[in-house]
Amino acid sequence: MTKNIDSSSPLPANIEEQSGQIPENVARRRLLSGIVASGSALVMSGLFRQAEAADPLPIPKWTKSLGEPVAARPYGLPSPFEKAVIRRESPAEFSPPGYVPPLSTSSWALTPLQDLHGSITPNGLFFERHHGGLPTIDPAQHRLVIHGLVKRELLFSMDDLTRFPAVSKFYFLECSGNSDTSLEGNHGQTAQDVHGLVSCAQWTGVMLSTLLREAGIDIDKARYILAEGADGAAMLRTIPISRAMDDCMIVYAQNGERLRPEQGYPIRLLVPGCEGNINVKWLRRLEVSDIPAFSREETSKYTDLTGPDGIAHKSSLFMEAKSLITFPSGGHELPEAGHYEIRGIAWSGRGKITGVDVSVDGGKNWQPANLAEPVLAKCLTSFTLPWRWDKSSATLISRARDETGYVQPYLEQLFKARGKFFVYHNNAMQPWRIDGNGKVTNGNRG
Amino acid sequence: MTKNIDSSSPLPANIEEQSGQIPENVARRRLLSGIVASGSALVMSGLFRQAEAADPLPIPKWTKSLGEPVAARPYGLPSPFEKAVIRRESPAEFSPPGYVPPLSTSSWALTPLQDLHGSITPNGLFFERHHGGLPTIDPAQHRLVIHGLVKRELLFSMDDLTRFPAVSKFYFLECSGNSDTSLEGNHGQTAQDVHGLVSCAQWTGVMLSTLLREAGIDIDKARYILAEGADGAAMLRTIPISRAMDDCMIVYAQNGERLRPEQGYPIRLLVPGCEGNINVKWLRRLEVSDIPAFSREETSKYTDLTGPDGIAHKSSLFMEAKSLITFPSGGHELPEAGHYEIRGIAWSGRGKITGVDVSVDGGKNWQPANLAEPVLAKCLTSFTLPWRWDKSSATLISRARDETGYVQPYLEQLFKARGKFFVYHNNAMQPWRIDGNGKVTNGNRG
Repeated sequence: MTKNIDSSSPLPANIEEQSGQIPENVARRRLLSGIVASGSALVMSGLFRQAEAADPLPIPKWTKSLGEPVAARPYGLPSPFEKAVIRRESPAEFSPPGYVPPLSTSSWALTPLQDLHGSITPNGLFFERHHGGLPTIDPAQHRLVIHGLVKRELLFSMDDLTRFPAVSKFYFLECSGNSDTSLEGNHGQTAQDVHGLVSCAQWTGVMLSTLLREAGIDIDKARYILAEGADGAAMLRTIPISRAMDDCMIVYAQNGERLRPEQGYPIRLLVPGCEGNINVKWLRRLEVSDIPAFSREETSKYTDLTGPDGIAHKSSLFMEAKSLITFPSGGHELPEAGHYEIRGIAWSGRGKITGVDVSVDGGKNWQPANLAEPVLAKCLTSFTLPWRWDKSSATLISRARDETGYVQPYLEQLFKARGKFFVYHNNAMQPWRIDGNGKVTNGNRG
Repeated sequence: MTKNIDSSSPLPANIEEQSGQIPENVARRRLLSGIVASGSALVMSGLFRQAEAADPLPIPKWTKSLGEPVAARPYGLPSPFEKAVIRRESPAEFSPPGYVPPLSTSSWALTPLQDLHGSITPNGLFFERHHGGLPTIDPAQHRLVIHGLVKRELLFSMDDLTRFPAVSKFYFLECSGNSDTSLEGNHGQTAQDVHGLVSCAQWTGVMLSTLLREAGIDIDKARYILAEGADGAAMLRTIPISRAMDDCMIVYAQNGERLRPEQGYPIRLLVPGCEGNINVKWLRRLEVSDIPAFSREETSKYTDLTGPDGIAHKSSLFMEAKSLITFPSGGHELPEAGHYEIRGIAWSGRGKITGVDVSVDGGKNWQPANLAEPVLAKCLTSFTLPWRWDKSSATLISRARDETGYVQPYLEQLFKARGKFFVYHNNAMQPWRIDGNGKVTNGNRG
């Protein structure tokens, strides 16, 4: 894969001449050596004969000029060469660069998982899902109220919240509609298209239990927390009190900086391991109650329709163990036979990932993948497995296990268990098919 | 700090009326309840009497309209209300919003530590330090060469590098000029001004040892790796071979996405725990050598001038244990007496932080702070300590310890040990002075 440098190849005897800019050799060389410590400057020092003989690289144009001034961008952005690495509202095949999707206030934008590395999602690429558009909220005006079955109703400014003890935790977030089975052929070709409604960040905020203790819950009656957002959809969801007093947080920061607007600026609820929708953004109101809200987004939507009748039998909040190979994945092309590293991410709403198995023959044989440290509960875990491709067709699948003993299922198993109306909470294994030319496609498709 | 809601206070009896938009009550209420699940809609359901009585919040304007369409920004940015949280080339007192510093290709931009949370620095706020400006490098044209005392000289494209086994690690980076003692009064007032040349990210790339093994080092002769950048400064630094074969990486990604231009796009060298400058950006050339480069940036610059004569006695690469209170810190103002949480970050180039002590009386008494999990080697570690401020003046100091047993020193101890010419590698404790009005200033200043 790497090129051996043939030491008999014609190497640049005079790097300045090759640059086409400096005609006189010695005088200018001496000058140059004071300015830049390039290969040629090293030679000038008389110490590094091997450098002259071996440097096979013409000096690139960006070394021959000064770059942009420092701090030209007080808030930095990716390289212009990475402009295709973006969130997309539609599958990549329908949204090539330049394509403008129809604008909608109730839609999503998917994370480019196939272009990411490690376990952190940069804030600019974190997936989006809004139901009433993206509000622009002034944090100086925003308030959080805790009321209902409490001893003391409380009203918090954003400055109030940052004075409570702060906690920072790495957690994934996944929309329960991720990998939606109702969309034809799993709605696309790439990892982003099919599974891009999952991301991961370090979140900082206050434990919800801290605030609830401050308010004083009526322990005889309180059974639920109703959480309402300040967006145009006034998103309203119900959290069992046991969950609320466990690891839930009111977060105001994400990967070090204040929450992004798409993630609920200035504050959101975080219910670690549970479906994205219940992590209410732009949080405005927490009501301690004895009965659930039975709101639109937990009755007509975001409810699993199970069994042959497709009736909503239960509220399923936790995201079960899941994994995804991100390289090679749909849309990639392997350029040649040889060594590759299969890479992916795994996560479980129930705790830590304990293992990921990978198959390259469509599930006949499995090998354990390497998990990247640190393995954290309810956080993306990277996995890798070395693989030698011999140009024969192959089907790659990964299978996650978590600390509860749960094993990620096949899609057919889920349909069998949940019935034909099953749409949400699809955590099935994803097969990627590789043909003899190295082209990778969605194994669930076509 | 939070307001009790007085239940006898005049609460809005009719939330729609208060909004000034909806005159007729009942009919419109019914309509509204179908659209938004606000407090008043809850009342309509007849289930939540307590909601009406208790909801003290007028419905904000952003709940009464739809927000921006989803995916309006394929690459997201912070809220416009966070526009003051930026990298700054000069201390904040000289660079208020709107101030344009003189443009320079050899300068730095400091991270706003006092506005950050947790241990991750978002890529857009990661500190910058360039010596020849910021080059815009086409990754398709960029190459890395390994040459010198090797069996096989190797030339890598960026695609070649991503095919090697990938490793993801959390590491801090700190410029050895951070907290520069030569600048008057520690050059500023805020944590950003004084100490903003430290940041932390999850880095993904290839182990340098993997590439060196691929090239085959001449083990009898090889003592150093010379690393050269492709920027206009052609930054050149020397790494002892033992370090190079340890935990060094060639990284192409940072916090999940490809390296930012300021951080060396498309690739940089990472020498975990060692001064920023040796983590050569825009990496172009690695030469295996029997002697050091003695380049400009490791002789006339980036060398500690120790002892009474100020002569460079040694090359000091590792960043020793250090800590910094980021709240409350210079520029903050405590609004009232009462509970606060002292927060900060600690790090060591030698390994894990084992403890941070905090004093609120200028170093007379010390208390152990809480360290946030996971504590990772050569990574920022967050610490917190609850504190009750009684409006008397106070001096806050933090002191880090690492797993080698090293304890962060006072500035006077460093001057005594290193002499008056000491400039780089200042890891002294930072005192913040709080006056009776809650105003926080740099305790080393004025």
